[in-house]
Order: sequence, then C-alpha cells, then structure tokens
Amino acid sequence: LRAEILAIGSELLDPDRSDTHGPFLAEGLRSVGVEVMARSLVGDEREWLEPAFRTALARADIVIATGGLGPTEDDRTREAAAAVLGRALVRDPEASEALRARFARYGWELTPDNARQADLIAGAERLANPNGTAPGQWIEDGERLLILLPGPPGEMRPLFEAEVMPRLRQLAGGRVVRSRVLRLAAVSESEVDRLVGPLYARVDNPRTTILSAAGEVELRFRASGATEAEAEGRIEALVSQVRDVLGDRIASEDGSSMEEVVARLLTERGQTLALAESCTGGLLAGRLTAVPGASVFLDSTVVTYSNAAKTALIGVDADLIARHGAVSEEVAQEMARGVRARAGTDIGLGITGIAGPSGGTPEKPVGLVMIALAGSAGDRVRRSVFPGDRSKVRARAVAVALEMLRRGLLGLPQI
Amino acid sequence: LRAEILAIGSELLDPDRSDTHGPFLAEGLRSVGVEVMARSLVGDEREWLEPAFRTALARADIVIATGGLGPTEDDRTREAAAAVLGRALVRDPEASEALRARFARYGWELTPDNARQADLIAGAERLANPNGTAPGQWIEDGERLLILLPGPPGEMRPLFEAEVMPRLRQLAGGRVVRSRVLRLAAVSESEVDRLVGPLYARVDNPRTTILSAAGEVELRFRASGATEAEAEGRIEALVSQVRDVLGDRIASEDGSSMEEVVARLLTERGQTLALAESCTGGLLAGRLTAVPGASVFLDSTVVTYSNAAKTALIGVDADLIARHGAVSEEVAQEMARGVRARAGTDIGLGITGIAGPSGGTPEKPVGLVMIALAGSAGDRVRRSVFPGDRSKVRARAVAVALEMLRRGLLGLPQI
Repeated sequence: LRAEILAIGSELLDPDRSDTHGPFLAEGLRSVGVEVMARSLVGDEREWLEPAFRTALARADIVIATGGLGPTEDDRTREAAAAVLGRALVRDPEASEALRARFARYGWELTPDNARQADLIAGAERLANPNGTAPGQWIEDGERLLILLPGPPGEMRPLFEAEVMPRLRQLAGGRVVRSRVLRLAAVSESEVDRLVGPLYARVDNPRTTILSAAGEVELRFRASGATEAEAEGRIEALVSQVRDVLGDRIASEDGSSMEEVVARLLTERGQTLALAESCTGGLLAGRLTAVPGASVFLDSTVVTYSNAAKTALIGVDADLIARHGAVSEEVAQEMARGVRARAGTDIGLGITGIAGPSGGTPEKPVGLVMIALAGSAGDRVRRSVFPGDRSKVRARAVAVALEMLRRGLLGLPQI
Repeated sequence: LRAEILAIGSELLDPDRSDTHGPFLAEGLRSVGVEVMARSLVGDEREWLEPAFRTALARADIVIATGGLGPTEDDRTREAAAAVLGRALVRDPEASEALRARFARYGWELTPDNARQADLIAGAERLANPNGTAPGQWIEDGERLLILLPGPPGEMRPLFEAEVMPRLRQLAGGRVVRSRVLRLAAVSESEVDRLVGPLYARVDNPRTTILSAAGEVELRFRASGATEAEAEGRIEALVSQVRDVLGDRIASEDGSSMEEVVARLLTERGQTLALAESCTGGLLAGRLTAVPGASVFLDSTVVTYSNAAKTALIGVDADLIARHGAVSEEVAQEMARGVRARAGTDIGLGITGIAGPSGGTPEKPVGLVMIALAGSAGDRVRRSVFPGDRSKVRARAVAVALEMLRRGLLGLPQI
C-alpha cells in the first residue's frame, strides 16, 4: 500500500516553519507497513487544492490530508475534496451535536461558520475528535482511501493514533513493524554515533536512526517481521549490543522523556525536590511540572534572577556572591543547599549560568553553567560550557540537570 | 508569479529527515516576489514523478525541481520532465565537455551512465554547475517556466543563487514583497476571524493568513507591489481597517512575541516583576527569561506547587487556602500580593489552577485557572476555564497572563 500526505494551509509554506505533520504521519504509516511516496504542503486555495487531491487520488492507494477543516474562510479542504470525489457535503447530526455540546460547555455561541465543521463528505465515516471542533473523515472511494484530519497537532495526532492507525493496521494486514526508542541526555550525537555506529551500520532490519536536540539524543530502532515476536527479537538482538556499549548512559528504553524518567524515580522513591533556577529561568520546573502528578515530588521552585533574590529567597550569602560571582560553583552549591533547606525537601538543585547573548567574559564565557545537587541524591557541582545561542544553552543546561538528577536518584556516579 | 517546488528523491521521504531544500528555495523565491503555493517531496518513480510535473506545470507559473539528475538508476527527473513537456532529451556538447574535463581532472573514467548527465531537455538552457557533475536546466514552455536543479545542497544552493535568482529577479520585473505580522493573545482564532474575516476575505493583495496556537493568534499579511512603498501601502490600507476592529487587542505589529512585548514595556517603564506560579509550573518565567536582558525586570519567580510552599515562600495564609481552596480567586490574589511584597517589586502576578488530567471537580473543573495581578499594573483577578489537555491549559494560562501584564502596563482595561 502506497500513501500520499497533503498538509494543507498557506501558513505551512512559510519558509520559517518546519513541517511536523509529514514526518509524524510518515512514521505512523511506516509502522503499519504503508510506504509514503509523496508528501506535500499546499496553500489553501481551491485552484491549488483540487489538483492536489486529484493527482494524489490518481496515484496513491491512501491519501491523508491534514488541515483546512476549521471554521474560517481559509478552510476549504472539505469543499475541495468533495468536488474532486464528485460528492456532496452533508451536515452530520452526530458531529453537529458534538459541536453544540462542546460550545455549550465553554459558554460559547455556535455560529453558522462554526457549524460548518460538522459537514461531512457524503458517505464519509466520522472520526470523533475529542480535542477540537472539527471531526476527521474516513472516505472509501472504490480502491482508494481518503482520510481528512484536522490541522492542529494536538488534535491531529491523537485522532490519527486512536482512529486511523488501528484501521490502517487492519488494512495493511500481514507484516508487523515494531520500534523502540532509547533516550540519553547530557551527551552529543557524535559521541553516541561513534560508540554505536559500528554496531548498526550494516544492519538493515532493524533500521537505526539517531536524532538529537538540545543535549538529548534519541536512538530509534525499527524492525519488521512476520510476527510481533520476530520483530521484537530483531530489535532486542541489536539493542542488547547497544546496551553493552552505552550502559547506564541510557536513560529510558520505553520512549519516556527525561522529565518522565526523573518524575517516576522521585515518585517511586518518595523523594521530594526543590529547585533554584537562575539562567534557565523556570524551564526545568516547566518540564517537570508537565508530568501529571508533579505536585507529589516538586515542592517548590524559585527562579532567582537577581543577586538580591538569591539572598532573600534562598539565603545565599551576599558575601559569597561578591567573592565568587553569581555564576560560580560556590553559589550554585549554596543555591541547591539553600532552596533545599528552605523548602525542607530531600533534594535541592541549583542552576546558575550565562545564557547570553551578553554577559560573558574571557574567564566566564557565554554558555558557562554551574549545576549543583544537594541532599539525598548526592552533593555535587558540575561546571559546563555549552555551545549555541541563548535558547540552546538553556535547553542543554536543563538536559544536564535532569541527567544529574537521574544519576543521583539511581546512585550512579555523576558524569 | 506563483511557484511550486518539487524535491525529488525517495530518501527525502524518510520521516527522520527534515526538508531543507523547500524552505531554502521558498525563502529565495519570496525575496524576489515569487509566492510559493505548494512544496512537495516525491519518490523517484516515473509513475509518481510524471503526475507531479503535470500537476505542477498546470497550476504554477514557475516549477523548480531538485534532485534526480545524477547518473544512477534512481535518477529519473530528466526523463519524467521531458515526457510531460513532450520534448526529447538531447546530449549537450558543452555539458559533455564539462563532464569529460571534470572526470579527467580526478582521473576517473566517464562511463555511459555518467555521460547521461549531459542530457538536456530539448530547448533547455544549461545552468553550469561548478560544484558537481549534473548541470541545472532552465526550460521555458509558453507561459510556464521549469527549472531543474541538482539535489545535493552544496551544488543546488550556489547554482540557485548564481544562476536562478538573477534571472527570476528580472522575470518578476522588480516586484517587491512585504509582509507584516499582528499578534493577539487571550483570544480565539474564530473570534478574530469573525471580526476581521469580512475585511480580508475579498482582498487578494495583501494575502492574509490566520494562525493560532495555545491562546495566541497571528494575523499575517503579505503584499506585493512595484515598489516597497506600494507593497507597504497595500498592507497598511488593510491593517488600518483591522486596527479599527481589533483596537487595543493587538499586542504587536512587528512580529514580536508576547514575552518580547511585555519585556519591552517593563524595561521601558522601569517596572519590576515577581511571579508566583502554581499550575503553570515555571512556564511563564521560562518564556519571559527567554528574552535577553530579562534580569533587568524579572526579580524572581516562585513555583509553589504545594500549599505549604504557598505559605512558606510567599506568605499565603494557610487558613485562606483551607477556606477557599488553593485554586480560588482569593489565593491567586494573595499569591500576587505575597510574591510582590517578598520580592519588593512593582508588580506581582499569581497563577493557580487545575491543569489536569486529574484534580477536577464539578465546581472546579480541569482547566479552571485563576490569574491575579497586584501592584503598579493594577489589581485584578481573572477566572478562566481553558479547554484542552494539560499542556494546552498551561500554555493558554501563560498567554492570558502575558496579555494581562501587557494591558496592565499600558493602563488598558482588563478583558
């Protein structure tokens, strides 16, 4: 089965945006054995949309289109697809009712524009969208299959996974594809590749991909087999060699994010945490509190940008700051100890650094970050100089802090 | 002039790869006033390539195709394009000579496969490629223009800049494109569209796009004109109508993010800020500290997840929490006042809410968030119920908090 993906919306063509829909859908389709042969971004004009649908439906078995299902003038996907299929649009009673209920819940009025979102192509199966207003649509047309999905990633992705994937899996029959993701933090892509490249380079099944972003590296393995056990066995055979090489640097093998790994460790061990962030400005707290249930372990966080706040809120000695500077191992250590003492938690963590673009000196360059742990996960200060711009320095500091927490909680030596 | 970009090569369809050709070419085309209406990645099979060329040449004025010009079996771009145009392939003597010279320089033998790279579509102008073996091709076909470029970025980019851009600049006849972005927060896309849709729906130049994410809306206008002044004038004519309708809901007109707008207002007015975040867990601080120079205005932030932390760190009365609940207007107000008093800043802001997925009750559902301001930007508590999952509720709360700060700092009535 061969598929084509159309991501619809003029805003997607902005050169500053990168397409996230295409890779996400291609990944999902590949996992059920469907090959993607073309992926397009198309502006939302009828003269461009209709030829796109016409061409795609002529050459692909499966066409998935995202976007253009909303209530505005720009949303023309329904009309264009209906015209190409030569079918009418029909207002769906169930979709209308779902829309009405959703609007009522938030006390909004259901305008005629919004009501349009309940229009389905005649013969389409409605794919319920619990996260938004426009439902997806599943349209069989002879040998061809057209699937319309809403554009916002927060709606499209769950809908694809819950409604589309199971149906496609059934359609594709046959071969099973399994994948596994290993995650590492505080390490570079080239370091990981140097270690594991020789292991996977000559292996076609599983296929291995290395991805990295801001101090974290993902190793992705994807294998196919006649059965689930065969595909899993192929992955396990390679991963066990990778484990021999990377050892305890592997933070997760089940796709969990670093914050999920740390949150789980803290929760399981009944340990509590308090953070004192300076240059990361709340980003570490933001990531940890993205995990549901973070209130169990994260007592409090203080973001102490000014020296005065470091003293007032967490009791860092003003003399210490004057002597060593706000970005110093000594101050980081006192931030970790101070916030732990004030909050009465098991663990304290302090981060202070120079995220840039200004504020660097020859001795203390932009990118210099001190991260300190205090308490039951060990006492330790780490000094790093991170490359990249302000946002990269901040993200890398957060990745290292999460890895230090993970290692401390597991009793592993700090790197 | 409207263009379509085809990036050809099955390897480009790998979900782990991101497309760099499309954005590069789109950026270059935009700078000479050519609008890109569609961008595709297409696998290198004839049955997929020919429809791609046929559709593109039917709807676009300019088609740029990259890749598939090399010597291997997979390189089928020349043949597919020639077939669609109904023209022959002709071996070009100059291109042959360039190939022979290049191969001789490296002491390689020019095989028949490699010699194919000198085949041009009949009537094509050869675009010399100093960085590789296959030349580019410039093919005029009636009103339409087809440009073939080699796939490797190190060949494609210099060739595009040296040979294609100057010709396109001339073709486009010096038309200039200008764009502007208006940003609004704490508002829905459909609300904005209801207000401004009637203004822009019938206007082709500028073209208007509405984008929204997590409580923020962007209105993008792009106009072309014979001169910069004409293009700007067209944008201003439409934007001035939009201003009449949206008024002070417009937070920025220069592409600034909400955090940049608020950071600038705080800095200009010499006002300082302290934050007490509960359900947003540091996200607001993370966004404000992403702005270089945030240390000037952001004294400190406390993330008080637990009730005890609310009391210990910012002095919220434990009785008040017991009486009204941690998620209440009263507690939000005390968080804003308390953090301001402790930090000694001009403004305090407090956020407390239920981000979910658990913790909701019939009276206090998931999504309920209280945001309070205290101090020189006014005293005010806003109660909202945000739709969506945990990450959406958090992001929307941050957007509303930024808008409350902006309005408070400007002395505008809170919405």
